[in-house]
Amino acid sequence: MAVTYTLVKECPVTGARAGILHTPHGDIPTPVFMPVGTQATVKAMSPEELKDIGAQIILSNTYHLYLRPGHELIAEAGGLHKFMNWDRSILTDSGGFQVFSLSKLRKISEEGVTFRSHLDGSEHFLSPEKAIAIQEALGSDIAMAFDECAPYPAERKYIKDSLLRTTRWAERCLKAKTNSQQAIFGIVQGGMYADLRRESARQMVSLDFPGYAIGGLSVGEPAELMYEMLEVTVPLLPKNKPRYLMGVGTVDYLIEGVKRGVDMFDCVLPTRIARNGTVMTRDGYLTVRNAPYARDFKPLEEECRCYACRNFTRAYIRHLIKANEIFGLRLTTYHNLYMLIHFMNAMRESIINGSFPDFYQDFNARFGRKKEV
Amino acid sequence: MAVTYTLVKECPVTGARAGILHTPHGDIPTPVFMPVGTQATVKAMSPEELKDIGAQIILSNTYHLYLRPGHELIAEAGGLHKFMNWDRSILTDSGGFQVFSLSKLRKISEEGVTFRSHLDGSEHFLSPEKAIAIQEALGSDIAMAFDECAPYPAERKYIKDSLLRTTRWAERCLKAKTNSQQAIFGIVQGGMYADLRRESARQMVSLDFPGYAIGGLSVGEPAELMYEMLEVTVPLLPKNKPRYLMGVGTVDYLIEGVKRGVDMFDCVLPTRIARNGTVMTRDGYLTVRNAPYARDFKPLEEECRCYACRNFTRAYIRHLIKANEIFGLRLTTYHNLYMLIHFMNAMRESIINGSFPDFYQDFNARFGRKKEV
Repeated sequence: MAVTYTLVKECPVTGARAGILHTPHGDIPTPVFMPVGTQATVKAMSPEELKDIGAQIILSNTYHLYLRPGHELIAEAGGLHKFMNWDRSILTDSGGFQVFSLSKLRKISEEGVTFRSHLDGSEHFLSPEKAIAIQEALGSDIAMAFDECAPYPAERKYIKDSLLRTTRWAERCLKAKTNSQQAIFGIVQGGMYADLRRESARQMVSLDFPGYAIGGLSVGEPAELMYEMLEVTVPLLPKNKPRYLMGVGTVDYLIEGVKRGVDMFDCVLPTRIARNGTVMTRDGYLTVRNAPYARDFKPLEEECRCYACRNFTRAYIRHLIKANEIFGLRLTTYHNLYMLIHFMNAMRESIINGSFPDFYQDFNARFGRKKEV
Repeated sequence: MAVTYTLVKECPVTGARAGILHTPHGDIPTPVFMPVGTQATVKAMSPEELKDIGAQIILSNTYHLYLRPGHELIAEAGGLHKFMNWDRSILTDSGGFQVFSLSKLRKISEEGVTFRSHLDGSEHFLSPEKAIAIQEALGSDIAMAFDECAPYPAERKYIKDSLLRTTRWAERCLKAKTNSQQAIFGIVQGGMYADLRRESARQMVSLDFPGYAIGGLSVGEPAELMYEMLEVTVPLLPKNKPRYLMGVGTVDYLIEGVKRGVDMFDCVLPTRIARNGTVMTRDGYLTVRNAPYARDFKPLEEECRCYACRNFTRAYIRHLIKANEIFGLRLTTYHNLYMLIHFMNAMRESIINGSFPDFYQDFNARFGRKKEV
């Protein structure tokens, strides 16, 4: 098996768990946040900086790489790891989400999806078989099954039809697989309907994937609804396999996901807001580009030990961002990824030493929230 | 004296010389190329990367920093070195060049120059006294005297009046100086008139600056005219002081400048063309963003040992640049600065071991040029 999961410790009070995800490019302590490297680069960062920060696995986007520079070119280069000089693990999504969120003129059929490139309007077709072929050419450690990420809100009938098709597509992905070094994860859909989530989860589990993602959440629904969907889905997933909540990367969502038994997360948010001059701290967001920080000679976050916080002030970083200097974005990006990865590490530590419930309550107390565990 | 120069070796055939520039932030082997950090950052680079590359001194721009974030703010931060976390040497220009090249509605009087900010159109006044006060607030190792960089072409009478005013301004700069840790260099002007260059050089030398710049060249004139102006100017400058040719940074100009006895150079070109996807090699320019490099899995320059060339291919860097990825600009910038700095180091080496004439002829032979030394 290319990818396996070892459960190290479960929280006796919540669903939180610490584990190790074994991949062809190394073992990854979980829960883990995966920085997003959409176009074969985590925006503004070098591979060495990602390692300094402690990133063990990154996510890259099949849709983007298929369109530019093309998966054949990347295969020619020796695969995505070699192309981008990243020797740790890579997860690639299936392209499904981007086809629905970025491209135009989509036509969904049982066979697959016809869409137009957001780059040049050219027409393309993506199917379960093609999504797997592309991901095999990229050579990621973990490929995702091709799914439909349904819109929110959506009618029950639409969601039901969509999840059943997603299950049929998942079966076709497994049949299309030719690379024994790459694992395919199935994706549970079902919109915001608890029974449909359960139905999708049971179907996916019956296909015996080495890992399961929960897709179609964090698409605009209230947080409580997302948590409810997690609560109905996660218990149906096997304990000996990793669980991945797609597209989630705020500290609130991460801690609530971990509490409900999720192991893996990814999100463009930390890197995207960084480039707009906003940094994440354990006390919330700080928009360092704003005027109050012009003469603030403190680091971005006082307790932080990251490269940006050890060496530069808010005043300097604000100046760089106001002046459109690339180094400013590098520093805010560095900080945000460091912050999230170290936040995940701290959660894992607390799960292992049995103090996750305290960690959870302390975290919420910082925001003046009293939360039950 | 804050800044002194030790002559280490002179080429017996040409005017080339190797030396050491002593500054409050370290000794700098010369000839040296100074990367430009206009807005308190060398675009796309970190201070650590600049050190990896071997940069010993950078240039920063008084005009830009005065307008944004303001020199008082930088003084409050503890000076420019601390603000940008750069503990090696810094040279600041006087703002004169930018007032004439970037700003609008300039009015020159004996007192100074009234101009409008290129950022917001606000009106400002810069004089010799103010240029020195700003540079003292920034705390650079080397400040430049406030001068007029006259346009090219220009009438003899305009150039003559301008250089005489520049001399009077230079005297005022010396009188305005209050910081014994900072050296002020005088700037020789004189346009493309050999006798006016000589006149300006004699006047500046009589003011006994610790170093001399040659300004107003590389402003659109033919290369041969620049070389001629160097040839009439450099012999009038004292041997025991550094000579700095402003705004020059192509390999051709660098080697021709060194051959004529220049010690210091700066230019935005290597970093600017890098951001447009063009890299400098010893064989000329390579525009890696062009289509022929799409499937070229060689490094930017095969003989180069820089970080970009050791780890990434032309195909990858082209992809990044086509996809507007910041990491692409980081890699091309890194390469160009590494290339120039190592080119300077190789020239210095050849001067010291007596082989500069061979170095010069080998360099030109690569381009099929046969040049006398």
